Amino acid sequence: MTETRDYSGSGLVHVKNPHLDSMEEDVLYHLDLGTKTHNLPAMFGDVKFVCVGGSPNRMRAFAQFMHKELGLAGDGEDLADICAGTDRYAMYRAGPVLSISHGMGIPSISIMLHELIKLLHHAKCRDVTIIRIGTSGGLGIEAGSVVITDMAVDSSFKPRFEQVVLDDVVVRSTELDRDLAEELLTCSKEIPDLPTLIGHTMCTYDFYEGQGRLDGALCSFSSEKKLDYLKRAYDAGVRNIEMESTAFAALCRLCGLRGSPRPSRSRRRLCGAPGPPGGGPDPGAPRGAAGVPAPAPAPDRRLHSEAPGAAPAGGEHALPHRVRAPAHCSPVFCETEKRGRETPARLRTGIKTDPHAPPPQPVAGKDCPTGVTPIHHDHLGRRPLCIWHKAKA
Amino acid sequence: MTETRDYSGSGLVHVKNPHLDSMEEDVLYHLDLGTKTHNLPAMFGDVKFVCVGGSPNRMRAFAQFMHKELGLAGDGEDLADICAGTDRYAMYRAGPVLSISHGMGIPSISIMLHELIKLLHHAKCRDVTIIRIGTSGGLGIEAGSVVITDMAVDSSFKPRFEQVVLDDVVVRSTELDRDLAEELLTCSKEIPDLPTLIGHTMCTYDFYEGQGRLDGALCSFSSEKKLDYLKRAYDAGVRNIEMESTAFAALCRLCGLRGSPRPSRSRRRLCGAPGPPGGGPDPGAPRGAAGVPAPAPAPDRRLHSEAPGAAPAGGEHALPHRVRAPAHCSPVFCETEKRGRETPARLRTGIKTDPHAPPPQPVAGKDCPTGVTPIHHDHLGRRPLCIWHKAKA
Repeated sequence: MTETRDYSGSGLVHVKNPHLDSMEEDVLYHLDLGTKTHNLPAMFGDVKFVCVGGSPNRMRAFAQFMHKELGLAGDGEDLADICAGTDRYAMYRAGPVLSISHGMGIPSISIMLHELIKLLHHAKCRDVTIIRIGTSGGLGIEAGSVVITDMAVDSSFKPRFEQVVLDDVVVRSTELDRDLAEELLTCSKEIPDLPTLIGHTMCTYDFYEGQGRLDGALCSFSSEKKLDYLKRAYDAGVRNIEMESTAFAALCRLCGLRGSPRPSRSRRRLCGAPGPPGGGPDPGAPRGAAGVPAPAPAPDRRLHSEAPGAAPAGGEHALPHRVRAPAHCSPVFCETEKRGRETPARLRTGIKTDPHAPPPQPVAGKDCPTGVTPIHHDHLGRRPLCIWHKAKA
Repeated sequence: MTETRDYSGSGLVHVKNPHLDSMEEDVLYHLDLGTKTHNLPAMFGDVKFVCVGGSPNRMRAFAQFMHKELGLAGDGEDLADICAGTDRYAMYRAGPVLSISHGMGIPSISIMLHELIKLLHHAKCRDVTIIRIGTSGGLGIEAGSVVITDMAVDSSFKPRFEQVVLDDVVVRSTELDRDLAEELLTCSKEIPDLPTLIGHTMCTYDFYEGQGRLDGALCSFSSEKKLDYLKRAYDAGVRNIEMESTAFAALCRLCGLRGSPRPSRSRRRLCGAPGPPGGGPDPGAPRGAAGVPAPAPAPDRRLHSEAPGAAPAGGEHALPHRVRAPAHCSPVFCETEKRGRETPARLRTGIKTDPHAPPPQPVAGKDCPTGVTPIHHDHLGRRPLCIWHKAKA
């Protein structure tokens, strides 16, 4: 079925589910909200930015920081968790900015995004920009760098997200809004000592075996094999690794949420690895905008492509497109650099530090404007690192 | 490489990672624990049971309940979160029972299990039984039933877990300890009005499109297609659906953690669907013990089987086996039945209630001995349901 409703001019958030129209009530269960129990347009109708991240504590601190930056009444210390009735996610609001935690991994962010997208749809929000912020593992870049994602790739370095729908698999594009990425990059240049680059982000289903860590309960590969894999990732344009970006990119793209790049502070590195000048993507790598690569066969399942221009799977999925909206980015990047973690195993790889890499970032410590400090982590030698940028009011 | 160390007689918890031996320190980052910062044998050496579940609040309530059941000093109301330095997971202890939250989805439970298994290994714990408890979606059974998992299956109803290791895929068995499942079933018979059965549990990566829900932000299938899929799942022996069991089964099996069935209270149903008598598994379905089904091709990756008897992938993975340990199960099943959720869409499928199904469970309400009550959920019409069983001291 071809999508007939065009949301691109309205700036509204899509839902692509014909069943929703006939439901008397929509319970956003994991957010503890619902269409009959809450006046969603009144509560959220003027939201323009949604910032999501893994940790509830960090997203509260981020909301408090935004509250102060925007000059809102009060000190923001007592912001209420809008999802207080559940401990699955936490949600805070500061003016037009919604700050939500999503836990760790694709399934966890996926549940949150389904319900968030319905929330924004029911609330009739317009021209919403969504940004995921968080920590990630850097590849071939200085620890502390900010990576703005232009494209999320899977563990085979392909810009795709395989979504199981019943027992089928549909392949979705994971390209992000290039204009927003460039905007964020421009903003970063106003901040001293903030090494920032645009690159691909690799998304894995696993923190240990999937990301080449040598310190999990299981590890079947050598340091050399790990290093070879990370170098191939670098050569494919990957500059950091995390666990949510492909699902995030695919869902937001399909539902008309603008852009959604993923700035994050990298916390580990593959120094000395050769790569294209400027850290840019491999020109040979497949691009989502030009077409998702042909899907490969999967066991006992049919594969469908939901790439731009392709017929949607199952009938109801429409072509993804970008909602062009006024730019009011509020790029704020927070992260906690973790010292001590993995050093014994990782340093044994023999990778040398790139002498041309940017200097390490200054440590904001207790003066960190976001209030994001690693609680009780000092015994591990971790230190808070916080880079911030005044929001454009 | 063939596994040379035999843990089966010792009852110790395996790690299968040769790199760990040469690490000076092992930081269990997401648990906020470490081998240099904490005396893990002193803190955890006598742990015999580990109970894991998604929600931190529920796992605290579960620990408090166990504290009282075991007659430990104090009222248990002030149990400290052992992982208080992080908000990724929560961990509580009541005597020999450790109660830990794992968030939602395979990646989230996977991170926790890697670090938990290393924790139990470093602490030199012996004869540990691990049980996942939680809510799930029931198939063809009365809402409120307890399903004890004999085997976790993927969305193709196969008892396997595909783990990406760098850019390879290894296939792992997901069969669970049949003896422990039978023990739990026997325990359940001592409790009046507790419909309990042993069956397969299907594990998905997604709550909405993957589980056939009609109320996500995206839905490309009809009610009929959904129902057809759920019926096929039922015919394959699936009795409930959740989002963690395959990774849980595979990791625990590989690392010598005993049994690990998954009792859970089902909260939705596919009534009237035909199935084998007694809700048993389809005799034609593949069984992990007899061999994992031949792996199907995946894009750009090599597939390895880590089934019993097969050569392990990558060299370091050994054959899984069961650790036979004394039975001291403390089966406690908690769940919250959610009313109102999905009813409009789900009831439209025209499925009729099975007249032979067991009667609905009694509602414990505020007297629930676990203290697990849905906070602030009354406006959604949800009610607390709690079934409990006195632990064998």
